[in-house]
Amino acid sequence: MTARALDFWLEFASTYSYPAAMRIGRAAREAGVAVRFRPFLLGPIFKAQGWDTSPFNIYAAKGRYMWRDLERLCQALELPLVRPDPFPQNSLLAARVAVAAANEPWLEDFCLSVYRAEFARGDNIAEAAVLAGILGELGVASAKRLAAAQSPEVKEQLKLQTEEAQRLGIFGAPSFTTEDGELFWGNDRLEAAVAWASRQDGAAARRSDSR
Amino acid sequence: MTARALDFWLEFASTYSYPAAMRIGRAAREAGVAVRFRPFLLGPIFKAQGWDTSPFNIYAAKGRYMWRDLERLCQALELPLVRPDPFPQNSLLAARVAVAAANEPWLEDFCLSVYRAEFARGDNIAEAAVLAGILGELGVASAKRLAAAQSPEVKEQLKLQTEEAQRLGIFGAPSFTTEDGELFWGNDRLEAAVAWASRQDGAAARRSDSR
Repeated sequence: MTARALDFWLEFASTYSYPAAMRIGRAAREAGVAVRFRPFLLGPIFKAQGWDTSPFNIYAAKGRYMWRDLERLCQALELPLVRPDPFPQNSLLAARVAVAAANEPWLEDFCLSVYRAEFARGDNIAEAAVLAGILGELGVASAKRLAAAQSPEVKEQLKLQTEEAQRLGIFGAPSFTTEDGELFWGNDRLEAAVAWASRQDGAAARRSDSR
Repeated sequence: MTARALDFWLEFASTYSYPAAMRIGRAAREAGVAVRFRPFLLGPIFKAQGWDTSPFNIYAAKGRYMWRDLERLCQALELPLVRPDPFPQNSLLAARVAVAAANEPWLEDFCLSVYRAEFARGDNIAEAAVLAGILGELGVASAKRLAAAQSPEVKEQLKLQTEEAQRLGIFGAPSFTTEDGELFWGNDRLEAAVAWASRQDGAAARRSDSR
């Protein structure tokens, strides 16, 4: 059987990545799609566009709208929401921990816990202690993981992952990419991305049936 | 009975306004919501943000994504799509004709026809002849309407409508505003906006029941 695969590109500082992260597990399970969590950094991508912070800070009307829109979305999903301070959070350390955990069974839980800490509790995810707490709750050796996250290898790994995102045409988060090269952007496109990944497999299966 | 009202803010040059315009009539009818078509110009709003053209032209990755995303959306909706040339189209004359027709029964049909001309047939909506053709098909005296569209009064009317959009926090198109001050942005938010407007009435009705 062909694997139904979807890459979920997340940035820990990204607001709309929060509801997307909370929703993707169930949506993918129901569609029989395997999701790969791929943390990356928007900072270098925004910088290449001439932005030195979140566009929600640069463009005031867009920022005001986003906070209200996110509030309505979270209300409908019954997700708690506090506004991170500072915004955007410095997501570098969390992204390094996550990228180093690409093959760990706890990666998805770690990502969800980071979003909850940031957007449901208002913790500052830039703080090593916050991430250590999350890792500890997952039963992971936090000191070892936090040290490894600062190694040259992991720094390079995150840099490469961010460059790959950029090569795939990613310019915001959350984003989703399929094996046949489709890109979907935004929490709004989660369902479309999952459906596309699921049909992709269907097409492959039909091709193999007709042989 | 309280009127269920929703303002639909459209820019004729805006790509995602095309599927939104094609969808809003049915969605609003099914929800018992009355939609007011409110043409405005994004140009002055973009200019205030330091942009001299569409952000889809300024930010290449975002532009490439938008065209593919719009293609997928239109395919799913069975809407034809051609890429306007030039993009964005100069929508000034069309917006002036539409703003002057705020109280005309043919306003909605005119708006839909402009989008079809631009995105389904690839006509240049900056051309008076294209708009004259549309007005003629609607049984409207086109020469009179096109002349009136260039009057100082109508120019001022469109300027005021654009300023109102900006005051409401609008920064892109399509946008939707409700009577209780909610703003929804994007073709993706059409259903949420219609549902909100419809519930608004429900709340008003419940308040009046409990008197």
